[in-house]
Amino acid sequence: MRLLFIGDVVGSPGRNMVKEYLGKLKDKYRPQFVIINGENAAAGRGITEKIYKELLEYGANMITLGNHSWDNRDIFEFIGDAKYLVRPGNFPEGTPGAGLKFLKMNQYELAVISVQGRTFMPPLDDPFLVADKLVEEAAKRTPFIFVDVHAEATSEKQALGWYLDGRVSAVIGTHTHVQTADNRILPNGTAYMSDVGMTGPYDGILGMEREAVIKKFLTSMPVRFEVPKEGRTVLSGVIIDLDPKTGKAIKTERILINEDHPFFY
Amino acid sequence: MRLLFIGDVVGSPGRNMVKEYLGKLKDKYRPQFVIINGENAAAGRGITEKIYKELLEYGANMITLGNHSWDNRDIFEFIGDAKYLVRPGNFPEGTPGAGLKFLKMNQYELAVISVQGRTFMPPLDDPFLVADKLVEEAAKRTPFIFVDVHAEATSEKQALGWYLDGRVSAVIGTHTHVQTADNRILPNGTAYMSDVGMTGPYDGILGMEREAVIKKFLTSMPVRFEVPKEGRTVLSGVIIDLDPKTGKAIKTERILINEDHPFFY
Amino acid sequence: MRLLFIGDVVGSPGRNMVKEYLGKLKDKYRPQFVIINGENAAAGRGITEKIYKELLEYGANMITLGNHSWDNRDIFEFIGDAKYLVRPGNFPEGTPGAGLKFLKMNQYELAVISVQGRTFMPPLDDPFLVADKLVEEAAKRTPFIFVDVHAEATSEKQALGWYLDGRVSAVIGTHTHVQTADNRILPNGTAYMSDVGMTGPYDGILGMEREAVIKKFLTSMPVRFEVPKEGRTVLSGVIIDLDPKTGKAIKTERILINEDHPFFY
Amino acid sequence: MRLLFIGDVVGSPGRNMVKEYLGKLKDKYRPQFVIINGENAAAGRGITEKIYKELLEYGANMITLGNHSWDNRDIFEFIGDAKYLVRPGNFPEGTPGAGLKFLKMNQYELAVISVQGRTFMPPLDDPFLVADKLVEEAAKRTPFIFVDVHAEATSEKQALGWYLDGRVSAVIGTHTHVQTADNRILPNGTAYMSDVGMTGPYDGILGMEREAVIKKFLTSMPVRFEVPKEGRTVLSGVIIDLDPKTGKAIKTERILINEDHPFFY
Ligand SMILES: [Fe+2]
Ligand SMILES: [Fe+2]
Ligand SMILES: [Fe+2]
Ligand SMILES: [Fe+2]
Ligand SMILES: [Fe+2]
Ligand SMILES: [Fe+2]
Ligand SMILES: [Fe+2]
Ligand SMILES: [Fe+2]
Repeated sequence: MRLLFIGDVVGSPGRNMVKEYLGKLKDKYRPQFVIINGENAAAGRGITEKIYKELLEYGANMITLGNHSWDNRDIFEFIGDAKYLVRPGNFPEGTPGAGLKFLKMNQYELAVISVQGRTFMPPLDDPFLVADKLVEEAAKRTPFIFVDVHAEATSEKQALGWYLDGRVSAVIGTHTHVQTADNRILPNGTAYMSDVGMTGPYDGILGMEREAVIKKFLTSMPVRFEVPKEGRTVLSGVIIDLDPKTGKAIKTERILINEDHPFFY
Repeated sequence: MRLLFIGDVVGSPGRNMVKEYLGKLKDKYRPQFVIINGENAAAGRGITEKIYKELLEYGANMITLGNHSWDNRDIFEFIGDAKYLVRPGNFPEGTPGAGLKFLKMNQYELAVISVQGRTFMPPLDDPFLVADKLVEEAAKRTPFIFVDVHAEATSEKQALGWYLDGRVSAVIGTHTHVQTADNRILPNGTAYMSDVGMTGPYDGILGMEREAVIKKFLTSMPVRFEVPKEGRTVLSGVIIDLDPKTGKAIKTERILINEDHPFFY
Repeated sequence: MRLLFIGDVVGSPGRNMVKEYLGKLKDKYRPQFVIINGENAAAGRGITEKIYKELLEYGANMITLGNHSWDNRDIFEFIGDAKYLVRPGNFPEGTPGAGLKFLKMNQYELAVISVQGRTFMPPLDDPFLVADKLVEEAAKRTPFIFVDVHAEATSEKQALGWYLDGRVSAVIGTHTHVQTADNRILPNGTAYMSDVGMTGPYDGILGMEREAVIKKFLTSMPVRFEVPKEGRTVLSGVIIDLDPKTGKAIKTERILINEDHPFFY
Repeated sequence: MRLLFIGDVVGSPGRNMVKEYLGKLKDKYRPQFVIINGENAAAGRGITEKIYKELLEYGANMITLGNHSWDNRDIFEFIGDAKYLVRPGNFPEGTPGAGLKFLKMNQYELAVISVQGRTFMPPLDDPFLVADKLVEEAAKRTPFIFVDVHAEATSEKQALGWYLDGRVSAVIGTHTHVQTADNRILPNGTAYMSDVGMTGPYDGILGMEREAVIKKFLTSMPVRFEVPKEGRTVLSGVIIDLDPKTGKAIKTERILINEDHPFFY
């Protein structure tokens, strides 16, 4: 059983990369499930219903979110009905949406969970406890459990990975927009990777226009960050192979497509 | 001209990895210069004169530091005389040590610079301005300039990379203890990588005992973090090839040695 | 019905101020209940059983804690049996101690609640939700409910004050160690004050030796903070008068005793 | 020699309080100089030229700013020519405006300095070093030196107060929007107060609509904060008396005007 996870899609350059390569990646790797983090899909900030559907059309089966979930107010219109959308599960009770969704594909059922970190991030409910609950709920239905850990600090991500090792199929980080090279299988069978990286502009800073970000650092003044409309792009992802009986991870493979690492079939 | 940079060496497990593999790495890659980040070399916290000399004996030519520079008070005894030790250059004026050191090896002179980030880290002088000054000073003597950016946030690291692109040979990040897969050559010839990763325990959290770190996240209680004495280990580094005339980067290659990625010659 | 609340007692200088003035304050104001924040009572860091008993002997009826609760490991030995000790209630489930305690005095029963803020502070459970639960529990037994809000940010303290207005007798802040001049009765009858201030050294910085704190700011180096052993001292508190039937606040009066504001009877 | 300093004026409710009471306060206290922090004067965010002139018309002689200096883009149009406007001096070199301005009134010249803290705030240049430089420059012309310390943490504010004690006439904090009760004269003659408090809505949270702020804490969702248009208001300030020869502080008196503390003459 094989999953493909694609990291933080940023604006139209990111969506165009998904459009261009997701079909090819599916041809090449034949994943049963495709999960995409879409928290920056709408001009770098949040997601709209139109873009959510666009990503599904391109071949995504589930979209995860993060701290930018609510940046585009369109989210409140459709999150309640969006079957294939997971927001961090440790937002306060009463928050629209859910942190756990299930997907069926032939004989397989996949649980997709999202939790958000708290280190260097706004206060939320405890991601460890919420993960415990969501994993317990998911495990009643399926051994295939994918967890998107949307967090800043490597310590918190690694801690969640080790904490969940053996209880879920994969703990994969998002949010820093930089792919890490630490994909591995933890001793009890959980695939782990601190961050899958971003999908969008290759020559920006975290996918935003670099001049603006540098100006912000140099001047400490308010600056408006925009997604660059032109230029080279990147797609970041990871392939995770799971034991079809136990749901345990067998193998991971990083996906990185850009001018320096062209896709080849 | 070739550099080898090895990331945050954590405690005796990290030093043992340097001892075991640095000779082999030098045999295999034949770097002119070896730089090692040693901010966690003494039991995870700072460095001592003995350990500084130990790392030089193993084959390091220059040691860089970071936010843990002052954790072991032995540093104050020897930093003033340590020729091959660079601490972040944007500590306040009057801080012992220096943020720029030069190294001569045959016909080549290498400048090694360190700056520390400020996002999600304690207040310091502006790393962009300090980098400007140190790079200007270094460029008077040599085109080979290596910058260790010791920082938490990927945005700040990328901003420094792009800001210095074309002015230095390499901007390589440290501090998160997780190797990133984004090593590349920026358009104006600077090698860039968000984090080189750590060297030490492979099954800890950032190199510390994982039970303690997880307990800290679960309980919010004070916990003492120690480097595990036993267990599997990892070495993280990067090879950077520079044009021998211009100092511009030509090629980068990630080094990752652990049980999942055995070293082979 | 009258309460006296005394803010963060720092080390022996703070305890000596309680010893010297609590009797006099009781003589002058005749409060039914005395509550003291003791999170810094043991050399600035935490509390011991001996000091807990010492503060009770001086006349305290209840001791509240804060982010320094666990700094002195003695706490784990006695918190389970300490009837008159309240730690922030929004620590994770399973944390020793409790965030709500009751006190009986003649015909009156007082509930004392503590919650800790999360803005500019370590992650914890939501203080608003935890306050909801503890207040609901307390309200079943008594209309006299005192809440110590241990927090850094004035926004979070004011938000908790307004959020609880009309449901508790008083919401009084601690932690910044500076008394605020904003004591008032909110429209629905809750006494509010952003911070009651500290009790201990008058010429330190937050009660610690000022040279060390200034050195820290100037050098960004690790510095050991100690409570100064000599010098002038201060006691900070607040008197709150409650309607004996409804528990609503009627009047507040700041207490500030130091060389510039001598106690007089 | 007497100064009146009025703290963070928030929106039109704040400006109306200045309009209504500044004349009366001048009548009552006869200060030589009136300084007002105006960083929130334009709808809670920054200041415009029109509002700057409005505050001067009401009787202010100098306006100080803070972290909200740049929130209203109008500032960039007039800060270069605004003689009576001081922004935090520790913004990076090249920032428009200045952190030190002088004012002449009869025989007296007053220097007004602003620095911004870095604890729990964005990175800036070192406020201690910048204060050193600005104070040295000011002291060449006058012994009357007023410092607005715009900072969050009480530790940083107190540290700056003690650090400058004896070198300036007054170190008065702003930014938390809550008046502190710790106004005093430090041993070497500097008036100190951690925060002068805000001027504007009395029943908001830091001067903003309280429902929105509470919603933000409860839901962790993006919320738009607005200054309430109606309701009770407050004015917060401090009177500082200086020795007309030495510039040292002799006396401080808190000003707090609201329904609970009516102004009387
Ligand atoms: Fe993202
Ligand atoms: Fe994110
Ligand atoms: Fe570090
Ligand atoms: Fe490190
Ligand atoms: Fe505290
Ligand atoms: Fe305290
Ligand atoms: Fe303000
Ligand atoms: Fe401010």
